[in-house]
Amino acid sequence: MDNNKKVRIIPLGGLEIIGMNITAFEYEDTIIVVDCGLAFPEDDMLGIDLVIPDVTYLKRNIDKVKAFVITHGHEDHIGALPYILKELNVPVYGTRLTIALIENKLREHELLDITKRHTVQFSDVIDFGDISVEFIRTNHSIADAAALAIHTPAGCIVHTGDFKVDYTPVYGDPIDLTRFAELGKEGVLALLCDSTNAERPGITNSERTVGKTFDSIFADNKDSRIIVATFASNVDRVQQIINSAYTYGRKVIVEGRSMVSVINTAAELGIINIPDNTLIDIEQINDYPEEKTVIVTTGSQGETMAALSRIATNTHRKVSLNQGDVVIFSSNPIPGNEKAVSKVINELSMKGADVIFQDAHVSGHACEEEIKLIYSLVKPKYSIPVHGEYRHLKAQARIARSLGIEIENIFILKTGQVLEIDSESAIITEEVENGSVFVDGLLVGDVGNVVIRDRQRLSEDGIIIIMLAMDESGEYVISGPVIDSRGFVYIKESDELIEEARQLACDELYDCLDRGVTGRNKIKNVLRDALGSFVWKKTKRKPIILVEIL
Amino acid sequence: MDNNKKVRIIPLGGLEIIGMNITAFEYEDTIIVVDCGLAFPEDDMLGIDLVIPDVTYLKRNIDKVKAFVITHGHEDHIGALPYILKELNVPVYGTRLTIALIENKLREHELLDITKRHTVQFSDVIDFGDISVEFIRTNHSIADAAALAIHTPAGCIVHTGDFKVDYTPVYGDPIDLTRFAELGKEGVLALLCDSTNAERPGITNSERTVGKTFDSIFADNKDSRIIVATFASNVDRVQQIINSAYTYGRKVIVEGRSMVSVINTAAELGIINIPDNTLIDIEQINDYPEEKTVIVTTGSQGETMAALSRIATNTHRKVSLNQGDVVIFSSNPIPGNEKAVSKVINELSMKGADVIFQDAHVSGHACEEEIKLIYSLVKPKYSIPVHGEYRHLKAQARIARSLGIEIENIFILKTGQVLEIDSESAIITEEVENGSVFVDGLLVGDVGNVVIRDRQRLSEDGIIIIMLAMDESGEYVISGPVIDSRGFVYIKESDELIEEARQLACDELYDCLDRGVTGRNKIKNVLRDALGSFVWKKTKRKPIILVEIL
Repeated sequence: MDNNKKVRIIPLGGLEIIGMNITAFEYEDTIIVVDCGLAFPEDDMLGIDLVIPDVTYLKRNIDKVKAFVITHGHEDHIGALPYILKELNVPVYGTRLTIALIENKLREHELLDITKRHTVQFSDVIDFGDISVEFIRTNHSIADAAALAIHTPAGCIVHTGDFKVDYTPVYGDPIDLTRFAELGKEGVLALLCDSTNAERPGITNSERTVGKTFDSIFADNKDSRIIVATFASNVDRVQQIINSAYTYGRKVIVEGRSMVSVINTAAELGIINIPDNTLIDIEQINDYPEEKTVIVTTGSQGETMAALSRIATNTHRKVSLNQGDVVIFSSNPIPGNEKAVSKVINELSMKGADVIFQDAHVSGHACEEEIKLIYSLVKPKYSIPVHGEYRHLKAQARIARSLGIEIENIFILKTGQVLEIDSESAIITEEVENGSVFVDGLLVGDVGNVVIRDRQRLSEDGIIIIMLAMDESGEYVISGPVIDSRGFVYIKESDELIEEARQLACDELYDCLDRGVTGRNKIKNVLRDALGSFVWKKTKRKPIILVEIL
Repeated sequence: MDNNKKVRIIPLGGLEIIGMNITAFEYEDTIIVVDCGLAFPEDDMLGIDLVIPDVTYLKRNIDKVKAFVITHGHEDHIGALPYILKELNVPVYGTRLTIALIENKLREHELLDITKRHTVQFSDVIDFGDISVEFIRTNHSIADAAALAIHTPAGCIVHTGDFKVDYTPVYGDPIDLTRFAELGKEGVLALLCDSTNAERPGITNSERTVGKTFDSIFADNKDSRIIVATFASNVDRVQQIINSAYTYGRKVIVEGRSMVSVINTAAELGIINIPDNTLIDIEQINDYPEEKTVIVTTGSQGETMAALSRIATNTHRKVSLNQGDVVIFSSNPIPGNEKAVSKVINELSMKGADVIFQDAHVSGHACEEEIKLIYSLVKPKYSIPVHGEYRHLKAQARIARSLGIEIENIFILKTGQVLEIDSESAIITEEVENGSVFVDGLLVGDVGNVVIRDRQRLSEDGIIIIMLAMDESGEYVISGPVIDSRGFVYIKESDELIEEARQLACDELYDCLDRGVTGRNKIKNVLRDALGSFVWKKTKRKPIILVEIL
């Protein structure tokens, strides 16, 4: 081991923001990037569709970047790939389902032909020169999730990805605790561990417990149609719904574009096992008695465009809700979605559905005792909590501390900070360019803070536009001022206020001309200030005021 | 009892929306109105400050309306009074703290002189002619909460207001279960009962249990400053913080305008008991060692302008957070506030505070078993669940059903529906005018759905303005078209797109003139459509497009 050289750990996202997971590992001339996720916009990012990481640092070091190494196929780990690969086209490595889901994305973005993908088996070690990456089986709310052992000349770094410990998973084997133990025995420099549930004591239940809940709900509701809403990517959950449906002689309809896509992909890979004659197309729904069907659908987060919301509001093309239908939410609301979920529950209840909102879900993330287990096996010198808000990272730091890791060896990093480590020391040496890039419609990065601030002000109080035409000299008014507004007041009912404002603009304008103020910008400023004060005094609102002189 | 006449129950708010509680009870020429609350705007009500009920029905029947009878002093029960009283100035009845809090509001709105207020004692029966109203003591998260027995010739109706059953309240006596029992024995026509926690099994713990939690936290953190965030109006909670502070020899600072106001009012009424030399002014904060102080503050819901948020972001005038400070959230997030609360917790944690988020709160609302208790005492013929979203009302309906009330005697009403009842029958006979009125700045009701829709579109994609000046005939272009935008793209970086759009507008304009299209509105439509399609194709965004011709 070369003790002079350190490995650089550079999180480019995922620390102050939920989602957008991406971390670079750099050793001399080799960079590998773990995950490349997107984030969904915060409430104040008005009109934004998606948020992706700023990867300026990677673009500047493009010659060093050998690969994206992906832990699993969730949006917050793969979603930014189609955008980033356009500028940074390096090979992508992942397990079967992960690569298959990435390929679905690349196909949509017409990037499949130009992107190298490598499907990796668990226990494979991929050699990137100074760095090699080993894939270790874990459990999570999506199949084929992997932790990574990142072997470098400065030591081995273990990155758990998102994980839980499930001794009885629905598909595949339990997490490869043996390999974590071996790595720990060989010596691990640093552990980057999932913090999502670090505040929760105890353990996360096995996915299999949800299957038992489904069985008991199916047994109790033999005379009702059953609708189950869950996450599109949770193949094991859908498997268990199919199992219960099969047991109770029901046909299964999968509804919602993203869920159909994931299930098709999983079926092709043999990750889901669908008995013959169990799955039917939504077009066949009326060929079976309602109480002999179960609809598995997206929309468990209250997303207004998802199938469940459309069913709840009676705008679904094929499914209309009936009195007595049983609707199971096999999910918890992601923070921020509580009201949207509640709205859908209210809509469903109003139409007479019986909504079941408890006990049909388990988390995909490790709780406190599972985190302790991983630390105890891996025995890292340094602890670097990842995946979570600051409160979650801090909770994991407390856990690490309680297991005897020295406080100076625990690093709660900020996005962009460069942590240089070897067995001797760990130091934050610099901060590289980082940030969030907004995707709005077709364009990436053109909407920044100025536009967002304008949208916020427009959303609060609207806009007033004052227009006039002047002669070339700027001394005479040819036409106007006229005034118009959007999102400020209902013009038809507030014509008095608008007329007063127009009159004021007139007075100010002629006052300017009388005083010999002729510059367009000067006149614009005078009118804007005068109108702003007037409107604030009359309404206590602050619309954007736009003065245009032709 | 006159069996020919029925009493009319008319909810004018509070059923499809959280908050905005107001229900009219009408018998012949007498109307009394129970509560007059506001609602806080939903996420899609952009720029709106408050929502108040549409009381057109009451204004049309102003001669019948005898009084507002208020159950307790929370915003969702009193907050609309200052707005409604301006148009419907009838006397207001309530218990001591309730009236005192209403008076604070009326003072702010300069309505104190013109509004008659009557402070009522528990067990008082107020005679309004055909209707008389009896105040019954209950428990809630604010002192002096009352249920009402509304006596009419058609029978007695019990309205619980917001309540819980607390056998060991901090201030005052337990809920007057004896009186509920007596009324039940005498015969109750209908029960309107709080549904907020109807989905929760079991009971709500006594407020006093929170005091024990405070004691144990204070005992465990003798060397740290303690900051407790809770609801401004929960006087009993503040009392218990003061008790613990006194026990552990700490001075108490109350911070946050609304909390200071409520505590002052409560102190004047003797509802809170503050030992001498315990309360200190925030100006004196530096005169005491930090570990000998506790700050009680607003902001437990993550409100950005509240004291706790300002402390968390280091923008508080007097309090700066230190490593090791203990911050207790004595509250649960109200649905919709989860992310805001989490943001404050993250900010506090980042500054080294130790945040305690569990076990220091109990709800003020009855759970399933308490609701059953009230039903079992009151034995109503009709059940009318109130206070809650549809899912909560339905949960109470299930409870009522489980206690043997016939399904046809359970009414989940919609706002505006008129339920006419007597001992023979209950029928929904009509729907009166109802709705939400938006308060935005100084103006009430001028922002309606058109303005809100514009604000939504502006917030998503902004606005593009195209201006040109034409001669009077409308045949020649004198100036323009020029184009400007706000909230659409960052103009400096998108000048190519904007110039393309301007060019397109030019082409379309001259094409119109060539084809002899001269009407302003026609030209406006052509330009709007052309620009809309162009922008959608290029960006997949749909800004408002405003064409102005001078």
